[in-house]
Amino acid sequence: MSAPKKVVLAYSGGLDTSIILKWLQTEYGCEVVTFTADLGQGEELDPARKKAELLGINPDNIYIEDIREEFVRDFVFPMFRANALYEGQYLLGTSIARPLISKRLVEIAAETGADAVAHGATGKGNDQVRFELAAYALNPDIKVIAPWREWDLTSRTKLLEFAEANQIPIAKDKRGEAPFSVDANLLHTSSEGKVLENPGEEAPDYVYQRTVSPEDAPDTAEIIEIGFERGDAVSINGEAMSPATLLTRLNELGGKHGIGRLDFVENRFVGMKSRGIYETPGGTVLLEAHRGIEQITLDSGAGHLKDSLMPRYAELIYNGFWYSPEREMLQAAIDKSQEHVTGTVRIKLYKGAATCIARWSDHSLYSEAHVTFEEDAGAYDQTDAQGFIQLNALRLKLLAARKRRLGS
Amino acid sequence: MSAPKKVVLAYSGGLDTSIILKWLQTEYGCEVVTFTADLGQGEELDPARKKAELLGINPDNIYIEDIREEFVRDFVFPMFRANALYEGQYLLGTSIARPLISKRLVEIAAETGADAVAHGATGKGNDQVRFELAAYALNPDIKVIAPWREWDLTSRTKLLEFAEANQIPIAKDKRGEAPFSVDANLLHTSSEGKVLENPGEEAPDYVYQRTVSPEDAPDTAEIIEIGFERGDAVSINGEAMSPATLLTRLNELGGKHGIGRLDFVENRFVGMKSRGIYETPGGTVLLEAHRGIEQITLDSGAGHLKDSLMPRYAELIYNGFWYSPEREMLQAAIDKSQEHVTGTVRIKLYKGAATCIARWSDHSLYSEAHVTFEEDAGAYDQTDAQGFIQLNALRLKLLAARKRRLGS
Amino acid sequence: MSAPKKVVLAYSGGLDTSIILKWLQTEYGCEVVTFTADLGQGEELDPARKKAELLGINPDNIYIEDIREEFVRDFVFPMFRANALYEGQYLLGTSIARPLISKRLVEIAAETGADAVAHGATGKGNDQVRFELAAYALNPDIKVIAPWREWDLTSRTKLLEFAEANQIPIAKDKRGEAPFSVDANLLHTSSEGKVLENPGEEAPDYVYQRTVSPEDAPDTAEIIEIGFERGDAVSINGEAMSPATLLTRLNELGGKHGIGRLDFVENRFVGMKSRGIYETPGGTVLLEAHRGIEQITLDSGAGHLKDSLMPRYAELIYNGFWYSPEREMLQAAIDKSQEHVTGTVRIKLYKGAATCIARWSDHSLYSEAHVTFEEDAGAYDQTDAQGFIQLNALRLKLLAARKRRLGS
Amino acid sequence: MSAPKKVVLAYSGGLDTSIILKWLQTEYGCEVVTFTADLGQGEELDPARKKAELLGINPDNIYIEDIREEFVRDFVFPMFRANALYEGQYLLGTSIARPLISKRLVEIAAETGADAVAHGATGKGNDQVRFELAAYALNPDIKVIAPWREWDLTSRTKLLEFAEANQIPIAKDKRGEAPFSVDANLLHTSSEGKVLENPGEEAPDYVYQRTVSPEDAPDTAEIIEIGFERGDAVSINGEAMSPATLLTRLNELGGKHGIGRLDFVENRFVGMKSRGIYETPGGTVLLEAHRGIEQITLDSGAGHLKDSLMPRYAELIYNGFWYSPEREMLQAAIDKSQEHVTGTVRIKLYKGAATCIARWSDHSLYSEAHVTFEEDAGAYDQTDAQGFIQLNALRLKLLAARKRRLGS
Repeated sequence: MSAPKKVVLAYSGGLDTSIILKWLQTEYGCEVVTFTADLGQGEELDPARKKAELLGINPDNIYIEDIREEFVRDFVFPMFRANALYEGQYLLGTSIARPLISKRLVEIAAETGADAVAHGATGKGNDQVRFELAAYALNPDIKVIAPWREWDLTSRTKLLEFAEANQIPIAKDKRGEAPFSVDANLLHTSSEGKVLENPGEEAPDYVYQRTVSPEDAPDTAEIIEIGFERGDAVSINGEAMSPATLLTRLNELGGKHGIGRLDFVENRFVGMKSRGIYETPGGTVLLEAHRGIEQITLDSGAGHLKDSLMPRYAELIYNGFWYSPEREMLQAAIDKSQEHVTGTVRIKLYKGAATCIARWSDHSLYSEAHVTFEEDAGAYDQTDAQGFIQLNALRLKLLAARKRRLGS
Repeated sequence: MSAPKKVVLAYSGGLDTSIILKWLQTEYGCEVVTFTADLGQGEELDPARKKAELLGINPDNIYIEDIREEFVRDFVFPMFRANALYEGQYLLGTSIARPLISKRLVEIAAETGADAVAHGATGKGNDQVRFELAAYALNPDIKVIAPWREWDLTSRTKLLEFAEANQIPIAKDKRGEAPFSVDANLLHTSSEGKVLENPGEEAPDYVYQRTVSPEDAPDTAEIIEIGFERGDAVSINGEAMSPATLLTRLNELGGKHGIGRLDFVENRFVGMKSRGIYETPGGTVLLEAHRGIEQITLDSGAGHLKDSLMPRYAELIYNGFWYSPEREMLQAAIDKSQEHVTGTVRIKLYKGAATCIARWSDHSLYSEAHVTFEEDAGAYDQTDAQGFIQLNALRLKLLAARKRRLGS
Repeated sequence: MSAPKKVVLAYSGGLDTSIILKWLQTEYGCEVVTFTADLGQGEELDPARKKAELLGINPDNIYIEDIREEFVRDFVFPMFRANALYEGQYLLGTSIARPLISKRLVEIAAETGADAVAHGATGKGNDQVRFELAAYALNPDIKVIAPWREWDLTSRTKLLEFAEANQIPIAKDKRGEAPFSVDANLLHTSSEGKVLENPGEEAPDYVYQRTVSPEDAPDTAEIIEIGFERGDAVSINGEAMSPATLLTRLNELGGKHGIGRLDFVENRFVGMKSRGIYETPGGTVLLEAHRGIEQITLDSGAGHLKDSLMPRYAELIYNGFWYSPEREMLQAAIDKSQEHVTGTVRIKLYKGAATCIARWSDHSLYSEAHVTFEEDAGAYDQTDAQGFIQLNALRLKLLAARKRRLGS
Repeated sequence: MSAPKKVVLAYSGGLDTSIILKWLQTEYGCEVVTFTADLGQGEELDPARKKAELLGINPDNIYIEDIREEFVRDFVFPMFRANALYEGQYLLGTSIARPLISKRLVEIAAETGADAVAHGATGKGNDQVRFELAAYALNPDIKVIAPWREWDLTSRTKLLEFAEANQIPIAKDKRGEAPFSVDANLLHTSSEGKVLENPGEEAPDYVYQRTVSPEDAPDTAEIIEIGFERGDAVSINGEAMSPATLLTRLNELGGKHGIGRLDFVENRFVGMKSRGIYETPGGTVLLEAHRGIEQITLDSGAGHLKDSLMPRYAELIYNGFWYSPEREMLQAAIDKSQEHVTGTVRIKLYKGAATCIARWSDHSLYSEAHVTFEEDAGAYDQTDAQGFIQLNALRLKLLAARKRRLGS
């Protein structure tokens, strides 16, 4: 790979990406464009602009954008149509944000004539894979620079020395080492590393940032209603909301009730196990609600196919293959299934749990006429079950007859 | 089907199966053998014996058995190795009991020279299918009698009239109609029908029988530790227990903390949607615990394969195909994966939720040496990630190049 | 089911469906509408009209249609996009025609105000299921009459007696029993029953109707080129053709070269095994050609996903679930994958085999620059493989270390 | 990686691995152990011994073994139980040999105290991955040396210069470049590279080494019978044979009749497409025969599950994951299905095709009594089909009713 001439950096404004910024300038002597996105991580973006300017970035090269609506509408919501859970439990909060960031990095590279993009993910994690697969899928000729895999700033001390040597301001609370590492966006907050590295030790309380503990949550349940259209949430308690607004509101509600905490040991794509603490308050409510509305509006054939495809779909997103033909194929199948996933669910929020307690819809396939224990006025002929069972049993009978015939 | 001569009836001792018993005698003039099983449903079995005798059953023809250990060891535990959830949420508490009951019915038929078995499931539900598929798979020539699909006792009034005409005692509280229908065993209690038939209406509190409401659960969390060996739970808080004893204890713990309630609309095998209220206190704790121990002891390749097979496995059990070659094939694969699923998990029980908060094992695949944010002493070479990403990206680059070349 | 008033009958003009026609008139006293379709079965349709008139059908109630183009375009081609093979070998020639016939039956019922449709499939086969599932999926209130399941004309003798009693002309060669049963359309001819019922006996030569035996095929190979656009064949040897024209031409070519014979024992949906002889000359060529063009134009991620979905897709079609949400979901995924399946393949036809010997496309993903054994000018960095292997091996190493640690 | 001290080299005796042998000695100054295996590639092994001695290998360090029986019994046959085809067409002849070679390399390393193994696969292919994943899975601490990824002998000229400078004898026909690259074992011969690199050009005739062209095959068909026990072939024409003997015989038969040629463009695990010519004469016959015996002895539930698992199983073998938990899980499921796959099939061999024309077995599930078009004496009650269809249709009717209700 020849040296990059102009690099678009995913820039948070924090110490680490500031060091990367400087390192890119000094290591490669290249022009740097910074991209700072509001994905709902809950941080002010203005300081990032000031810091970038301070580090000598041309104001034209500073991109600061609120992409929360695009994030929820085009990434989070399509994923939730699938009820995606990685390894049965993880709501993919970090995974789903990476392809969007890469998409904007590549687009800004095209706009600014940059030949490279850079990110601050380490060489041990999944995020490097996600950033880079997305970037290459969108521009096969883009260069991707991953400083953590390249440089020799391999200890906290060296990083601080580099920062000081390069006049990068260091906030007081960043002098020492953080006790764990955090990623946040509108869907979730993840924490990992350091004090969390022993999965046999409970996570300390101070790790949680976005949810109260169930013990501290209100003693009274709160009931909400979520409206869906074609698989996407569109309203809370009857009030129509944009995707990001709705998820923000669900986060407040979920966080208040201690909902969405997960202490999890997962398998990284790069081959090792890792322990993380995830907080996905709104997403956890959303999953329960989406399942609730699917219960009455989704056909069993469609639902069972979805269930069987889900693990692969989730794995693709986790592994960084959002922009792959197979993810798009699965999405086409999943989206097809959502045409009638429209209606309303009632959710109870209480002490860490979101529970669907009622659901209704004009698109419902539930037929009280068929299921009722009462007289059904001919909707269902019970004698049909006889033939249904006989033909389903036929091959089992033939197997049993063979076993008897052969004595085994 | 020629008329049966001797029938083994799955007999609870309740009004409905007593009516069936009498109906079999009168309709077919056949000898009846009763089989009453203790599956952990929480009812005395002695009254069933007395009632059978009262209805004229020869004492030699009255089978009463405690099959709780066999139920948990050979049915519940193998299923939990798979983390089986039907339609993403239901722990299959009713489904998993049916094949065992059928197995005993067929065995007793062989012992007593009966040519038929009979059950009390209706023609609208899944249980008829489960009973009958299992029976035919174990004896291809057995006759199965399903009175609810045959007789004309299609209303409560007619049933009571039949009972009275045949001197079947009717408990006072059985005169009126029960407000819902119940099935129970050591794994769960299910309630459905009547007041639950509108999924847009919340289930009334009095439906729940086995769990307190989260609101009424203790205000302080309880921490327990569950030990596993080769995928099965073997101890609680260090105390070794038999399968049924262990599940009984987990039920007490879960029930006390309001754990394992599910309000669910599912797709029946016979084609309609149905709403049920499930209480699976111990099973819900067990699933969380099993997942917790798998997190550190199961390889990702094995785990992801299990995840992808699970929906089909669960569907097979739900639909009644326990005794089918494909369920046995999946079980072989799942059991193979559990050889190292040995270790201990710590579970927090609080207000409706069971949460894994720590797990450890001699069989752990978690390697702090690899994952650590600290110096890893060469366990992992971060530059390997470069090649890993490049080769995973290669096809995506070729796709992107094609898109660019063709302009779409 | 109340008696039908007006029935649309799938009418071939042959003896069996003529008997059905008469039986419907006499049994139900209902008006009969006949629907006779040219699906490429190679029979004249005019005699069917005359015979229907002879049997007293009002000319306005006689529908005779050439639906070959619709058949190939909307049913055969979408299925071939999936490379669908039932149980690894069968090209689904009968299965794919049934939903289209049912669709027209239901549409004609709507046009003519009929309340029922009728078909001539027996109660042992798959076709009854396919006809009826399709009909119910298109009109939930339609009545379906399956005379073979209802009447008492259970022997050849009774059928002929009924025919004679009702002045139904019987062709001389229909007096005796046919030695096997046939279904044909533009995609295939199937033969089953009677002389074929012992799968341990070879099928007699006279069973084959549409292909010469490989021994009798030309001693010289014939080379053809098939052009594809977005997954569908569009030309032969450079000549653009409509779907039905193209398949007709492939049938001629395949049949001449003895291609597409299959002697097969399959599992019917209704639970038994059945032996059939299938001749699918054009379809066999088409499958080989489609695979050939996919080899260079389909990404591996997309291709492997397709491969894993195919068995379920094929099973759905075989079982009669063409008009089901899950088939439509899978179709959406499959169609999505075909956007670049455009190009040309060269096929050698010789003595029973169609073999792809070359393929090329503007949409090709094959990159000689990457794969070459020669110098590749930096297209591929062989050292990347090191990291790729190391990270893929990481979990295997951790497993091996555990095994060593635990001594097993 | 520290320098290896003693290396076990997979040594063919040919020029390339002789150069590797010398290079290991000179580059690392390490002791070399050679392992030369007879996998049925059809070459004498004695010359390899002589050449190794000539290159200074201690006779105690020369391992020459006939592992054909182990290869077929423990690798080829288990794979054929699955009917494994990679990307629908490739019989995995190269892939399945690699893990066995690695197994012996690692075992010999343990016996001889070697700390490393080496192979002659290039950095672009799948074989490096297969060799190395297997080695690491069997010994997590083993070093693997892949000279083609390391050295600078990147052209034919440099290789020859190195050989000459190191007194490695060069056969005359090895002076020029081979027009393509070959791998062979008892299951297949593969050819790729050079003249085959354009998939739009037909493969020249001289590429084929193991099969006659169909045109040159006998003009008369040959009929053989293959006996199976529990999924494995055990006899030909009634003569019991060991696995390797049987496959050798099938190779002769298949090769003589021009069977098993495949011109294929596949997706390599390392991300690129590659074109290969495969000849698998015996394996192609075996697949057809195994399918034939499964047709009558395998239950549909088992068979359909197998079909759905097969693509993943094949991909695992292709990608080098033979020694992975998930391959072993799938094998457990597949082997479970084969318990009754016992019986005999008759295969016709003619002009490039192997065709199953008859099959019979004591374990057959085929029931003429059920399937017959004749009177079946009550084996099957056609009215059962009515209920079977009605309940399968129920959800489709509910969907259709919704569509009608909502107007879409």
